[in-house]
Amino acid sequence: MAKEDYLEVYKANEERFVEEWKDFLRIQSVSTNPDFNEECLKAAEWVKAHVEEFGFSARLVETGTKPVMLAEYEVGSDAPTVVIYGHYDVQPADPYELWESPPFEPELRDGRLYARGAEDNKGQVMYTLKALESLIQADRLKCNVKLVIEGEEECGSEGIAKLLSSEPELFAGDLLFVCDLGSVMPGVPTITMGMRGIVSLNVKLGGLNKDLHSGVNGGLVKNPAQELARMLAGLFDDQGGIAIPGYYDDLTEISDRDKELMEACPMDFQWFEETVGVPPSGGEQGLSFWERGGYRPTIDINGMHSGYDGPGSKTIIPSYAKACLSARTGGGQDPSRCLELIISFLTDSAPADLEFSVEHQHAHGGAVLLSADSPAIKRAHKVYTETFGKDPVYLWMGASVPIVGELMQAVGTDEALLIGFGCEEDNVHAPNESFSLQQFQDGFMALSGLLEEFGNG
Amino acid sequence: MAKEDYLEVYKANEERFVEEWKDFLRIQSVSTNPDFNEECLKAAEWVKAHVEEFGFSARLVETGTKPVMLAEYEVGSDAPTVVIYGHYDVQPADPYELWESPPFEPELRDGRLYARGAEDNKGQVMYTLKALESLIQADRLKCNVKLVIEGEEECGSEGIAKLLSSEPELFAGDLLFVCDLGSVMPGVPTITMGMRGIVSLNVKLGGLNKDLHSGVNGGLVKNPAQELARMLAGLFDDQGGIAIPGYYDDLTEISDRDKELMEACPMDFQWFEETVGVPPSGGEQGLSFWERGGYRPTIDINGMHSGYDGPGSKTIIPSYAKACLSARTGGGQDPSRCLELIISFLTDSAPADLEFSVEHQHAHGGAVLLSADSPAIKRAHKVYTETFGKDPVYLWMGASVPIVGELMQAVGTDEALLIGFGCEEDNVHAPNESFSLQQFQDGFMALSGLLEEFGNG
Repeated sequence: MAKEDYLEVYKANEERFVEEWKDFLRIQSVSTNPDFNEECLKAAEWVKAHVEEFGFSARLVETGTKPVMLAEYEVGSDAPTVVIYGHYDVQPADPYELWESPPFEPELRDGRLYARGAEDNKGQVMYTLKALESLIQADRLKCNVKLVIEGEEECGSEGIAKLLSSEPELFAGDLLFVCDLGSVMPGVPTITMGMRGIVSLNVKLGGLNKDLHSGVNGGLVKNPAQELARMLAGLFDDQGGIAIPGYYDDLTEISDRDKELMEACPMDFQWFEETVGVPPSGGEQGLSFWERGGYRPTIDINGMHSGYDGPGSKTIIPSYAKACLSARTGGGQDPSRCLELIISFLTDSAPADLEFSVEHQHAHGGAVLLSADSPAIKRAHKVYTETFGKDPVYLWMGASVPIVGELMQAVGTDEALLIGFGCEEDNVHAPNESFSLQQFQDGFMALSGLLEEFGNG
Repeated sequence: MAKEDYLEVYKANEERFVEEWKDFLRIQSVSTNPDFNEECLKAAEWVKAHVEEFGFSARLVETGTKPVMLAEYEVGSDAPTVVIYGHYDVQPADPYELWESPPFEPELRDGRLYARGAEDNKGQVMYTLKALESLIQADRLKCNVKLVIEGEEECGSEGIAKLLSSEPELFAGDLLFVCDLGSVMPGVPTITMGMRGIVSLNVKLGGLNKDLHSGVNGGLVKNPAQELARMLAGLFDDQGGIAIPGYYDDLTEISDRDKELMEACPMDFQWFEETVGVPPSGGEQGLSFWERGGYRPTIDINGMHSGYDGPGSKTIIPSYAKACLSARTGGGQDPSRCLELIISFLTDSAPADLEFSVEHQHAHGGAVLLSADSPAIKRAHKVYTETFGKDPVYLWMGASVPIVGELMQAVGTDEALLIGFGCEEDNVHAPNESFSLQQFQDGFMALSGLLEEFGNG
């Protein structure tokens, strides 16, 4: 089929596609909070039933945590096998009061569908499924397809990681599609060349057996909020870098060619500032936008909580202070080593006489770096150019799909396409997440083209 | 009357005293939160009605915020006039879930009465009123008494401050009793010689128009939690002192005699550590326990909040971070100047491109320093020795009753008695506040003796 055919199919079916997408979004499959376990299972079952309707043979593979939905469509043993990865789980929706429409009641406003997961990742899974369905129905799918839709992407991918190590043969194939990425800006077709790895940890500093009167005890006992602020501030040097000794040791040097492609990626700084509210002036001073945002490792405080939080004042020394942290790792860095370095650094800088503890810790997957010389990337470039009438740009992007490295190993390839049509304005991981019908259509068009291209041997 | 007579009166009436005290404690007179305004008014009216019952003429003086309960008992124009200060408001009771019995349903357990305000300040007001009632009924009150019971001690004393400046004559007298203090340890009669001043402020660092994805934006935008942690940590030097330039400039040097009396005050460090959970190893390194806890200025973070606070992780850059701060000022320091210095310092250290704002600020009263050579202190020493059979100790203590300095001016005296029987284990400003019947009795005995002593001209 040509680009025009895909568009015709899309337009004829758009209404139904959106209704099915809404059904998927109504399921509250928040994986980071055990209260939503039932909903996660429901989402897995929904995807399984859905792909069976257009010819996949599917099953839920138990992992001990959340099941992985595995489905296969075989066209023949001579055909190449494309493994497609996505996830059915979503981030928490809190704070609920900041949503203009309830996060699990999808609402179409001005051409955008609003709901938790509208983009990340249910929207991108849905246009992928709809492209597969359409190609199958037109008898144009000429590659074998394995669908791998997991339920713990937002909380560490523990279940699928177990499967990848215990039953890697389930994932064997010739090429990996990861449909959880984005465009550098709306309307700019983008091929992602790198993703950062991720680790997370929650820490607590306590020891006081109650909140203390700040008059009676001020100057006598160490204030946990003050001490934790000092410890957290100490993670960073005065140029915005990470101050932990040895932290950058294993970081891959970026090649001149990669650097050139990276810096060629367009960025509208005015659009950036309007979208997020502040200019991109954070991170390591002296490095470029793309290096800081897509390539270099970072540590972020995701939450920090201690003591009073009401109107007026309450003059206490809070009994404890805690922080949620996550770190993005760069190419070459071992996430487990990064996690250990952060924990050691905080432990060493914790004050005597207070109690420092790590309440949660997880080393997720490491960073992925691709090469612009990869045959798959070159074919994708051709499809994108045909589909969108312009060359795609190459993006080294800062987010993580932690399991991709291990997935590539299990598939048995160093060829992967990191694709997707998410944008900053989609508000992923935040209130009022949305995905436009235009983005959905672009995704459908791209996936249709890519799947047909890779069916040509 | 002699000590034995006071004790007899106390024992004969204890049951009734406790019931009246409980009535007072059931009123939820939290002054820091406008939701409790009605309850504050109810507490003021309760005190007025109560003191009228034993002969005071009383009224509520409107201030525009919360009324001050003023009551007078006149024995004759030749007699000296003692002005007695206390407050009917209490600190917030949250977190409610940490209370073993509800904070506004007083419960007597093992000789201690548990409720918000059981000590601070309703318990201490009540033994004072009961001593006055008992002396009046025995016809032994030989001084004029002015009762000044205000309702904003826990939130800045704005109302009474206005009265002190607009109608100081209301407070004219010969001597001031402030019944809102404590004992250095349970059972050790204590005369307080100094109190710190206090300022408070709440600050916010924002500018991001939403929580951002920490992968996509990590390294690009300044993280408000990270930047606020740095700003707060910067308030302190590496020896536990305040790092703001010029902050200590006006601090009164402690005299050798005061220092000697201060250091003679007993402290059981094991008891301290058992009571608060940690040893007294905070504050300015190299200075004594009493200097750090009672004399030197301090800044404390009372609360610090930003971003995610749930189970597991949520990988965001929080859109804002905020902190509640309070500072205790030392002798000679102008609280307004201290507040300005803190605000300037934080403003100067706030990062470009984020928005720093001061959401609340208040300079309360300054520190009060008394002299051991004061005639009133000498007479109090005698009464305490007679009442308790041992010499009182002298305490420079770190908490604040911010209005005392201005009260002394309005009364027209530099003679004040800073008295009370509160102890660390009372949990004032914290969950499970309580006051023992023994402390209540000691207070009754001391006030009876002091009021009779000062009636002797």
